[in-house]
Amino acid sequence: MTKYLHSMLRITDAEATVRFFELLGVSEVRRHDFPQGRFTLIFLAAPGQEGLAEVELTYNWPPEDGSAGDVYGGGRNFGHLAYEVDDIYATCQRLADAGVTINRPPRDGWMAFVKAPDGISIELLQKGERLSPQEPWASMENVGTW
Amino acid sequence: MTKYLHSMLRITDAEATVRFFELLGVSEVRRHDFPQGRFTLIFLAAPGQEGLAEVELTYNWPPEDGSAGDVYGGGRNFGHLAYEVDDIYATCQRLADAGVTINRPPRDGWMAFVKAPDGISIELLQKGERLSPQEPWASMENVGTW
Repeated sequence: MTKYLHSMLRITDAEATVRFFELLGVSEVRRHDFPQGRFTLIFLAAPGQEGLAEVELTYNWPPEDGSAGDVYGGGRNFGHLAYEVDDIYATCQRLADAGVTINRPPRDGWMAFVKAPDGISIELLQKGERLSPQEPWASMENVGTW
Repeated sequence: MTKYLHSMLRITDAEATVRFFELLGVSEVRRHDFPQGRFTLIFLAAPGQEGLAEVELTYNWPPEDGSAGDVYGGGRNFGHLAYEVDDIYATCQRLADAGVTINRPPRDGWMAFVKAPDGISIELLQKGERLSPQEPWASMENVGTW
């Protein structure tokens, strides 16, 4: 039987990306350094989803000669990763307090979009019933794209 | 508790994409048409992973005036979706028989890469121990990128 394992994302700052996912409630569960290939793989999962639905971060180490490392742009064929959260307002507040732009605020108490480092779009969906509209979210404008 | 729901992909041919995922053993589990917004959402899951780890396909309908619809390119920040399969040779044979290019053949009996329609990279990993090298795979060259 086929089984989904993970979605792989390329990242330029491993610690910043792990910190971002921590704000969502998604944590590092494994990390493997490959010094010969000069890359690191970091696996993330929400609680209880280890081995079931992970994110694999690929961090290619910058060149040894000190020149600039890779920069990763986005395409349109990949949309986003979606996570369900217990309290979308609390999650967005935690992200905002850490300096993350809330690109699509949860005006409807149900859906928000933010971006992980390297421009990876993340959809947040409220678990269960949508919450009652609440300020400052209800009147917050969209920012940029997602 | 936060929970991963899905990875969203934008696609230009819903039926071709569903057929491709069927070849991997990943099936359509829900579909919702939104005629007012002129788009369709299709959710896919491997057996037993419905509601746990899904792929959301977004199909934006082409314009009513008959002009060309969207075309989606890829970026580098998203790498691939990874699936574990029971028999990587059988899966690759099924894909090849359907005309899918095996970009990175499973020479090692363990890993292969193919592309879904719209250029979405898919990693296939052999479940459990890697298989013994086997022709025609063992001597098959890489094709293109993944």
